[in-house]
Amino acid sequence: MANDPLSMWNGSARTDILQFVARVTQKGGRDYVPPAERIATFDNDGTLWCEQPLQVQIFFASDRLKALAKKDPTLKDRQPYKAFLELDLTTIHELGKDAVFEVAFATHAGGTEEEFDSAARSWLASARHPKLGRLFTQCVYMPQLELLDYLRANGFKTFIVSGGGIDLMRAFAEEAYGIPREQVIGSSVKTRFELRGDRGVLVKLAQLGSFDDREAKPQNIQLHIGRRPILAFGNSDGDLAMLRYVKSGDGARLALLLHHDDAEREFAYDRDFNLSPLAEGLDRAAEYGITVVGMRRDWKAVFPAPDSARS
Amino acid sequence: MANDPLSMWNGSARTDILQFVARVTQKGGRDYVPPAERIATFDNDGTLWCEQPLQVQIFFASDRLKALAKKDPTLKDRQPYKAFLELDLTTIHELGKDAVFEVAFATHAGGTEEEFDSAARSWLASARHPKLGRLFTQCVYMPQLELLDYLRANGFKTFIVSGGGIDLMRAFAEEAYGIPREQVIGSSVKTRFELRGDRGVLVKLAQLGSFDDREAKPQNIQLHIGRRPILAFGNSDGDLAMLRYVKSGDGARLALLLHHDDAEREFAYDRDFNLSPLAEGLDRAAEYGITVVGMRRDWKAVFPAPDSARS
Repeated sequence: MANDPLSMWNGSARTDILQFVARVTQKGGRDYVPPAERIATFDNDGTLWCEQPLQVQIFFASDRLKALAKKDPTLKDRQPYKAFLELDLTTIHELGKDAVFEVAFATHAGGTEEEFDSAARSWLASARHPKLGRLFTQCVYMPQLELLDYLRANGFKTFIVSGGGIDLMRAFAEEAYGIPREQVIGSSVKTRFELRGDRGVLVKLAQLGSFDDREAKPQNIQLHIGRRPILAFGNSDGDLAMLRYVKSGDGARLALLLHHDDAEREFAYDRDFNLSPLAEGLDRAAEYGITVVGMRRDWKAVFPAPDSARS
Repeated sequence: MANDPLSMWNGSARTDILQFVARVTQKGGRDYVPPAERIATFDNDGTLWCEQPLQVQIFFASDRLKALAKKDPTLKDRQPYKAFLELDLTTIHELGKDAVFEVAFATHAGGTEEEFDSAARSWLASARHPKLGRLFTQCVYMPQLELLDYLRANGFKTFIVSGGGIDLMRAFAEEAYGIPREQVIGSSVKTRFELRGDRGVLVKLAQLGSFDDREAKPQNIQLHIGRRPILAFGNSDGDLAMLRYVKSGDGARLALLLHHDDAEREFAYDRDFNLSPLAEGLDRAAEYGITVVGMRRDWKAVFPAPDSARS
């Protein structure tokens, strides 16, 4: 890594990243940023791992609903559960991102946080992507793992700021990305504190706390981190508020947007993915000062070797 | 410090802390906890710094209201503003903690987060405690600074989890306690993301997001940290949910409660302080497995030398 810290990266995106990191870490330089302020925030779905044909959260909810439908078979005939159970993409896409995620989060209501974590880990250990065939945890992007490592080696603290459920991400982010649980920000439901005998537990409720998308991303960055990051990476219009918040701070800042244009190695989509479209971001990236990373052109590799050691 | 890591501590509280840290850090031991899971959470008001005769937040709000009253003199005749402006303790205490803090937080509505931070830093640089005469930032407890250092030297990550406003604490926690902004959890108001020209800013609203007291403490620990801490320190019944949540986890856990029984060096109060009483905590500490720290007996020192280097 010392010789080529971004060995899986090509072209101008790679150059932008290297130059930015050099500027903010050069002691005495005009753009020097002390380590405590080197905060980098990454979206997760579509930025750190695959989100096609559906976000992983939805596959998890579908399997959870299958278990619930054994107790309550009427779920099989009621929308939107029917669509989740059948993975009916058309109906799910028509619901829209907010509604889809609200349904997904609500399927876990009533369990404790610790039960959820155990169920999520167990599911992730064997659940596979329906088209790619590999474990979901192997649908992470190798160049991003390299970038996260590179940033941390340069004194950055790396965070996830994603619309995905905060607890599902926490169940694998430490192992997959090297990002500890307390540096994961995501959508969340409200919880109730309960004493069961002498044991205090937190029970997940069906009520949404925060849907961490669009303007909620900078709001949750303020709530959880309390500093304006100096680097942010996203892949959809839902990330633009975060990217513009980051980019418009004083001093050197880097905002990046991954464009999925690689039908051969992954998927090609942008404006047409109505669960998380990328349209304004493509049209106005230059105006907003955002670096667009083209997967096909800028990444030498995409996924790890199937079922490699990390699984 | 290597010779006596808790030189300002006496008695059984000191022994409890030393034994607990030895147990969780002993590799191969039955109670060993990996560094990533060594999370310690501290209340702030009354635990890390002085909260008498009022929480510092309220003095800040009072000074803020004085500025607002120059533009709107009717505030001087309207409750609860009148009580804040006159620091009328009886009326403020009668309002109760939740209402008092809601008023205090609302005085900052309309400004950006960055403006708030700047105003808070400027205020803290000169604001003094009305009875002790020292800067508020010098009303921190020396034995707690020593404990925070000791825990960090043993691989702990230290967090604040307090009913105080998250942004006021962030304005001094790094310098005073060595706790970075992203490890401060507190009460918060909702914010609005706004683009002012090209610059993205977060504007504080008058609407409460979370009042981080009682059951909200474990809830916010789950939201922000996502792990059950192994050590927690509080000083009032508002901390009991957090202490019981921590203490009832599996493995070695330590829950501590500071009892203000030192009228000579600080203040003596517990059941009678209706902004933040300590009653159930005293009555049931043994049953809950909580170690009570008596300021008079267990601390060799309380405050730093007045206007010492840290100011």
